[in-house]
Amino acid sequence: MKNILIIGAGKSSSFLIKYLLEKSDEENLKITIGDISTENADKLINNHKNAESIILDVFNTEQRQRIIKKTDVVISMLPARFHIEVAKDCILFGKHMVTASYVSDEMKALDKQAKEKGLILMNEIGLDPGIDHMSAMQVLNNIRNKGAKMLLFESFCGGLVAPESDNNLWNYKFTWNPRNVVLAGQGGAAMFIQESTYKYIPYHKLFRRTEFLKINDHKFEAYANRDSLKYRSVYGLDNIPTMYRGTIRKVGFSRAWNIFVQLGMTDDSYTIEDSENMSYRDFVNLFLAYSPSDSVELKLRSYLKIDQDDVMWEKLIELDIFNPKKQIGLVNATPAKMLQKILEDSWTLQEADKDMIVMQHLFGYELNGEKHQIESSLTVIGENQTYTAMSKTVGLPVAIAALKILKGEIKTPGVQLPITKEVYEPILKELENYGIKFTEKEVPYLGYNPNYVVG
Amino acid sequence: MKNILIIGAGKSSSFLIKYLLEKSDEENLKITIGDISTENADKLINNHKNAESIILDVFNTEQRQRIIKKTDVVISMLPARFHIEVAKDCILFGKHMVTASYVSDEMKALDKQAKEKGLILMNEIGLDPGIDHMSAMQVLNNIRNKGAKMLLFESFCGGLVAPESDNNLWNYKFTWNPRNVVLAGQGGAAMFIQESTYKYIPYHKLFRRTEFLKINDHKFEAYANRDSLKYRSVYGLDNIPTMYRGTIRKVGFSRAWNIFVQLGMTDDSYTIEDSENMSYRDFVNLFLAYSPSDSVELKLRSYLKIDQDDVMWEKLIELDIFNPKKQIGLVNATPAKMLQKILEDSWTLQEADKDMIVMQHLFGYELNGEKHQIESSLTVIGENQTYTAMSKTVGLPVAIAALKILKGEIKTPGVQLPITKEVYEPILKELENYGIKFTEKEVPYLGYNPNYVVG
Repeated sequence: MKNILIIGAGKSSSFLIKYLLEKSDEENLKITIGDISTENADKLINNHKNAESIILDVFNTEQRQRIIKKTDVVISMLPARFHIEVAKDCILFGKHMVTASYVSDEMKALDKQAKEKGLILMNEIGLDPGIDHMSAMQVLNNIRNKGAKMLLFESFCGGLVAPESDNNLWNYKFTWNPRNVVLAGQGGAAMFIQESTYKYIPYHKLFRRTEFLKINDHKFEAYANRDSLKYRSVYGLDNIPTMYRGTIRKVGFSRAWNIFVQLGMTDDSYTIEDSENMSYRDFVNLFLAYSPSDSVELKLRSYLKIDQDDVMWEKLIELDIFNPKKQIGLVNATPAKMLQKILEDSWTLQEADKDMIVMQHLFGYELNGEKHQIESSLTVIGENQTYTAMSKTVGLPVAIAALKILKGEIKTPGVQLPITKEVYEPILKELENYGIKFTEKEVPYLGYNPNYVVG
Repeated sequence: MKNILIIGAGKSSSFLIKYLLEKSDEENLKITIGDISTENADKLINNHKNAESIILDVFNTEQRQRIIKKTDVVISMLPARFHIEVAKDCILFGKHMVTASYVSDEMKALDKQAKEKGLILMNEIGLDPGIDHMSAMQVLNNIRNKGAKMLLFESFCGGLVAPESDNNLWNYKFTWNPRNVVLAGQGGAAMFIQESTYKYIPYHKLFRRTEFLKINDHKFEAYANRDSLKYRSVYGLDNIPTMYRGTIRKVGFSRAWNIFVQLGMTDDSYTIEDSENMSYRDFVNLFLAYSPSDSVELKLRSYLKIDQDDVMWEKLIELDIFNPKKQIGLVNATPAKMLQKILEDSWTLQEADKDMIVMQHLFGYELNGEKHQIESSLTVIGENQTYTAMSKTVGLPVAIAALKILKGEIKTPGVQLPITKEVYEPILKELENYGIKFTEKEVPYLGYNPNYVVG
């Protein structure tokens, strides 16, 4: 009997738990799910004989260590900042660990100890980061093994609402943490390289510098992620002329979202005086010039030069953002929190809504004097509000990795990312059984050439 | 014989030292000027018998304490972050202290100890902060003493080039630390209140939300300072409907400066890869979309929608910012540092250039059912590059305060700002002898009413 401990039974744990329960008889697994409350865990376990839920406070060192000591592999689905204490316990008691979060510097620092003890601390093995790494590395290594020279790598990912549930003007709903959506792109300029030219986009221009892409005949747009440059070394592409990573939205979202950025509504760095007594309309007016007579609407239109027949205006109206009667009702709130409140009225998934994950990689390379391009795309649609596409794409790679580590099929010790063949090949293969399968095709090589101009 | 120690003999110490030297016989003063190098101090002392320069490393605790021990009052003209160690020594050895910097929280924490020992730690007694506080509080208290109710307080200050030396299209040169000019407005939204409505302007909109003002028949513009709200309590104006503080520029400066902000060139939070090998033109191109064929010029014009006949374009050309041959030559530089380098080519004061300080306060109030407004304005022109208007307006209030503290004419102990009558009245009076005199006039009350609409 092998013991698996899952810490955190939140939104992205449903498929993870389902997968492990389904394998539990065959693989002789005992699954323990610890969280602050057992409510969600109990629902997901649904009385399965091989699993139990426990109340676990990750800040209670004594309890945490007692439970980790009894397990064989720990899966942490907690927010990223909480992993490190769990990781230190895993080192202490000789346990493997798996997370879907970006590897932190503190985590990296455990590499030597993990190797000494023969332990695997696997990180970034969810969707993004996770499936993006694995699917990119598989194609990249295939190309490189032919002796080709990489010229371009672009990678895009987005969590969206599924077409059948897409019924608002923004073509967007919150399928993930709304706070992260409101704050997306903040904290520094976006950086990337195109045709050997470094490019830097400040936050306030990010949503006007989108690029278009086509995935399975649907048109999307993408804005640049924070730091694409650092992925050059991660993927072994140090001298590549074009390296770009972006976040996918439906066409037209970013141009409208830019209204909030321009006004200053996404700022999370200060609190608004008297926020609890403000209406949605008052909130908008905070960011517009004072006038004794002009309306909030006209001031906004004039300030941001929004034409009367621009659909962006309809998008604002749809959010009911000029309503003088709806109260924000949040005490000492930042602009970002107030905006989130307004957006949640309109963008919260309804009971029958489904979500969708889209991902696309572009690989440009030169082989025997000829230039080639490969386009690799993925679309995953959720089943319902529990078994979402997000939960599937985040949770399944985590679950598969945990089981393979337990069975000794993944065995290279240390603080790891899923960028080696030992990891990505079996996991991508198994993901195909669950409908997570990239469509790969050869397309004409254009380089980074947004206007399709022949150079 | 009374000993005065001045720490820091930089650009803003010339008038400070001149004033004290002139008073030194009559007041029996011995002046010691300590700095890392004595070069500038020696020039300013010019062999005056009552002064000496010493090499002083403010981080050398033993030496610093030995010298402070022997003095009666310490004037710190160091950058603000270096004051605190000096202040702690002053408490330890029972010395008074004067600075022109914003009072820090660490400094505030010394208030109790200062009071217990009967010591004065006077802060914010330069120009801005300093003369702004004193001149505002004098008028405010006069108005309040009549029993009037304050309705509006707006306060503007700027360091500019004097009209006779104003010979570039930007109507601007660096008369103060260039780095502070490049970074101006960063670090959070500007906040103020107008007609009881809170207003918040994000940095990327700051230079498009200017207000116009007239000082002695010259038109200027001003952009909002970071936090005007906190001055409500400092000035005892907690319930005032309109409170706004701003920075003055010549008309048209801000709209052109906004180009740099929009591009992201003022960002100081990250470094540019390969900055040392970049030309001015390469630098501009970092912030523009990649194109295999379009020029940097056309990309910039199109991106920021700059018309062909817009003087903003001429302003950019004047800076030679598109030059592909001029190298930045700075290793691992931030965008802000690279921009500063380019601007210094054009905006450095020439030998014969003079600077100018402008300040204006607007006071609106209600007395006996009638509304009134007072406009109080100051213009100071520098003499030359050593005896600048900036040095005069920063250094003289510091010097006068130090002497009055020494003579016991200013005597309230504690960590102080110059907002009490004991301080501002004699100092403002004496400043008039040096041509630092406000022109006060009654104007029709308009409230905050930028378009002069009758409400």
